[in-house]
Amino acid sequence: MAARLVDLNCDLGEGFGQWTLEASDDDLMDLISSANVATGFHAGDPNLMDRVVRLAVERGVALGAHPGFRDLQGFGRRVIQARPEELVNDILYQLGALREFARRHGVRLQHVKPHGALYMEVARDETLSEQLVEALLKSSPETLLFCMDVSKTYAVARAAGLPVAREFYADRDYDRSGSIVFARRMRPLDPQEVADKCVRACLEGKVRTVEGDDIDIEFESICFHSDTPGALRIGTTLRAALIDNGIRIAPAAEVVAQAGGGR
Amino acid sequence: MAARLVDLNCDLGEGFGQWTLEASDDDLMDLISSANVATGFHAGDPNLMDRVVRLAVERGVALGAHPGFRDLQGFGRRVIQARPEELVNDILYQLGALREFARRHGVRLQHVKPHGALYMEVARDETLSEQLVEALLKSSPETLLFCMDVSKTYAVARAAGLPVAREFYADRDYDRSGSIVFARRMRPLDPQEVADKCVRACLEGKVRTVEGDDIDIEFESICFHSDTPGALRIGTTLRAALIDNGIRIAPAAEVVAQAGGGR
Amino acid sequence: MAARLVDLNCDLGEGFGQWTLEASDDDLMDLISSANVATGFHAGDPNLMDRVVRLAVERGVALGAHPGFRDLQGFGRRVIQARPEELVNDILYQLGALREFARRHGVRLQHVKPHGALYMEVARDETLSEQLVEALLKSSPETLLFCMDVSKTYAVARAAGLPVAREFYADRDYDRSGSIVFARRMRPLDPQEVADKCVRACLEGKVRTVEGDDIDIEFESICFHSDTPGALRIGTTLRAALIDNGIRIAPAAEVVAQAGGGR
Amino acid sequence: MAARLVDLNCDLGEGFGQWTLEASDDDLMDLISSANVATGFHAGDPNLMDRVVRLAVERGVALGAHPGFRDLQGFGRRVIQARPEELVNDILYQLGALREFARRHGVRLQHVKPHGALYMEVARDETLSEQLVEALLKSSPETLLFCMDVSKTYAVARAAGLPVAREFYADRDYDRSGSIVFARRMRPLDPQEVADKCVRACLEGKVRTVEGDDIDIEFESICFHSDTPGALRIGTTLRAALIDNGIRIAPAAEVVAQAGGGR
Repeated sequence: MAARLVDLNCDLGEGFGQWTLEASDDDLMDLISSANVATGFHAGDPNLMDRVVRLAVERGVALGAHPGFRDLQGFGRRVIQARPEELVNDILYQLGALREFARRHGVRLQHVKPHGALYMEVARDETLSEQLVEALLKSSPETLLFCMDVSKTYAVARAAGLPVAREFYADRDYDRSGSIVFARRMRPLDPQEVADKCVRACLEGKVRTVEGDDIDIEFESICFHSDTPGALRIGTTLRAALIDNGIRIAPAAEVVAQAGGGR
Repeated sequence: MAARLVDLNCDLGEGFGQWTLEASDDDLMDLISSANVATGFHAGDPNLMDRVVRLAVERGVALGAHPGFRDLQGFGRRVIQARPEELVNDILYQLGALREFARRHGVRLQHVKPHGALYMEVARDETLSEQLVEALLKSSPETLLFCMDVSKTYAVARAAGLPVAREFYADRDYDRSGSIVFARRMRPLDPQEVADKCVRACLEGKVRTVEGDDIDIEFESICFHSDTPGALRIGTTLRAALIDNGIRIAPAAEVVAQAGGGR
Repeated sequence: MAARLVDLNCDLGEGFGQWTLEASDDDLMDLISSANVATGFHAGDPNLMDRVVRLAVERGVALGAHPGFRDLQGFGRRVIQARPEELVNDILYQLGALREFARRHGVRLQHVKPHGALYMEVARDETLSEQLVEALLKSSPETLLFCMDVSKTYAVARAAGLPVAREFYADRDYDRSGSIVFARRMRPLDPQEVADKCVRACLEGKVRTVEGDDIDIEFESICFHSDTPGALRIGTTLRAALIDNGIRIAPAAEVVAQAGGGR
Repeated sequence: MAARLVDLNCDLGEGFGQWTLEASDDDLMDLISSANVATGFHAGDPNLMDRVVRLAVERGVALGAHPGFRDLQGFGRRVIQARPEELVNDILYQLGALREFARRHGVRLQHVKPHGALYMEVARDETLSEQLVEALLKSSPETLLFCMDVSKTYAVARAAGLPVAREFYADRDYDRSGSIVFARRMRPLDPQEVADKCVRACLEGKVRTVEGDDIDIEFESICFHSDTPGALRIGTTLRAALIDNGIRIAPAAEVVAQAGGGR
């Protein structure tokens, strides 16, 4: 059955100090329904976080924390081999930091989504997923956890009753297992191909893998990355294609609510 | 008129990674009614914050965030000449980070207290005080702001209706203006002298300055520092002296409530 | 008398991790005779330093270390109120770090030049200048120290016998004292005006101040900043104007040698 | 054949800012012939580096750089999954930083020794060893590289002609492969057992593994860690035991020279 409602999320605020990425937060904010805001460990600083939260509130975009490994130099794309409890504490710290800016601007956080290599670590490590879900159930039981359908994160969060939203990656390749192929640096992508892939995933629930097969895929949100070369064009093309195909874009919380928690 | 009720606060969690200060958080926690927890910029890391929050909850000690300048090497004792809005954002970031750990452990933050050189900057800079108070009124209107009686912080917070608690510094010298004399490194102190000074301040509302005068002093909380040499002995002696003189030690929120906002 | 030989220097390698500034190191390198390489505290990371050093060696550009305050978020444009000996140690640390990459690529460092707010602090603080010069005389007596003509740095270094090169700032305003007006963010500049100002300074030894007077100015090197908006066009225009006016561009060490240490 | 000459090395300067480890650099310096100085990424700051270098020069102790992963919170005991060239650049950066302090105090660096998890990564990763050795041959061909006998590092460095010194670990367990068993936190050790193990290794060239076998072991230097609980007592007992057994303690460069590069 076809998805007629989907969230569109993007990582924003991924500068630091005077540095910014090529695609501007301001431009990207117009394309999406949910913003993942970098929270200082891999990118983002308090000034930028405040600015992006303010911008999201002005544009009616839902907010999420996007905590990463403590690795500014590596942009959170390098695994740090830490104990699960250390990583959970890193995530809570960053989640709370962003939540305070949301409080300042009078909104609630919709979601939390680990960044880069940390996202992949949580996805594959059941113990880490369990400890994270246990901590989030205590500190923020109403905050959606973003994850992949095939991940440990999803399985553990569902079993524990933590609200989740599953993501489809517009600008990453899938392998046969249903997982994305992680890359530290991105190759240039064709925006129309990206858009077609996403529309098909929404309408048919299928995606072609790097091995050449089609697999089934379920999700409530589509993600594209602000540091993918040509991010703005990709997002613009993708948004238009979704709308042209009758797919409505809405914040993940609304998509999840309509789906009754699944699809 | 004499104070029969006072808060006793101390900065805890001021290690980083594998480093700790001489006096242990565990020992100090038994002496105090309010803990100022370092929040990562001048000291403190997510693991340590989680541990200290848990410890405070177990011991029934009230919790506060203790944000500092982003200067781990200088332990937040060196001024960074930043714009007020930058410093307010630094404070919110750290405040929120600690609040998340409080949420995890099922308690609320009682207070926020800038650390070291940042405390002194807020105290003397009216614009910074105004911007901080304005931000806190939005993000955390029920959180007490700790400050000095003579500070801009106190004047601004009172005028704006933000709840405050004033501090008396057990291990710092006062000058004639009623301000403390800031020091990057502390000389050794005699615990009994410190205790006598505090008891007198509680019972008589007076303190001897470095110039040799007595001045009037008002406060709801007494602070001593965990990195003052001999901190544990100072705290132990001070606590005993307060109790011996009929002064009850209670969290700042209780002291403020009883005083009706003043003394 | 007119200068027919001048160094042209620019700050390079001022990215961090995946972030870069607008103007590319690669493009800027073609315009200059001396590169000031960011050394990790305000910008720059080991990978970037290695890349910029390699590039400079390939292009025959002289190398200098560009140490800043330990303030990545503030890009070294915020003063940290530290003791002189702390700042000298910060400078030596960063200087040595870059020198190792120079050794790897078979060249010597030509110069060292503090960055941003640290440059201004050294310029105005005689004690800091003295301690820095004393340290450099020991660790690197053959490395040129870049500074302003009117600075304490210049006076102290000359008196102590440390080799120096004085700079003229293409993209900063001068005040009547002969010092530049420090700015955390730059306004857009007209490249031709910048070039005219520099050519006049070379040929006539004069510059117009913000107060509207002409003052005398002496220098062996002209600096423009890679983070000034439009840096690449400014540099291109400036280089062309210098050459068009018969002024030869050469590394500072050559300019200083020809001038016999002065002009 | 018995070793009558051995180096004794220890990691020093492993504080940061106001934090120090339990055992003081000052006390440990009296026990050793070579000091590995933390260079800022996992521990150590420029002020501490300057102080430790000065102390080593005063006591006639040979100096080495002790670069680690960029992970202050994890004390360099957590692997960061980075590309070999990134890690080589991290090492060069830190090596150069320390070298500048050695230059300031008029001595040369004797050696370089990666710290903690980075040491183990270099030991097991042939590509990383090759790239590191290649870089060191260019930037510092006369600086000894410390490593384990069974490591890739040793094999690659020997083949390439980079001078090396092999280490024996006083306070770590060995496994059957001749490698040490890496631990993020150390259990308490009995100083006399440690000393006996080292004396035996020197005189018989053998060590008992965790599996219970004896294996042959070759080395020019013995290492103990300043953050091992009871480090000072371990070092004192070990030094006395070596001397009592007729083993002379001398800097690694002297041991290597006498051995003709091997044993």
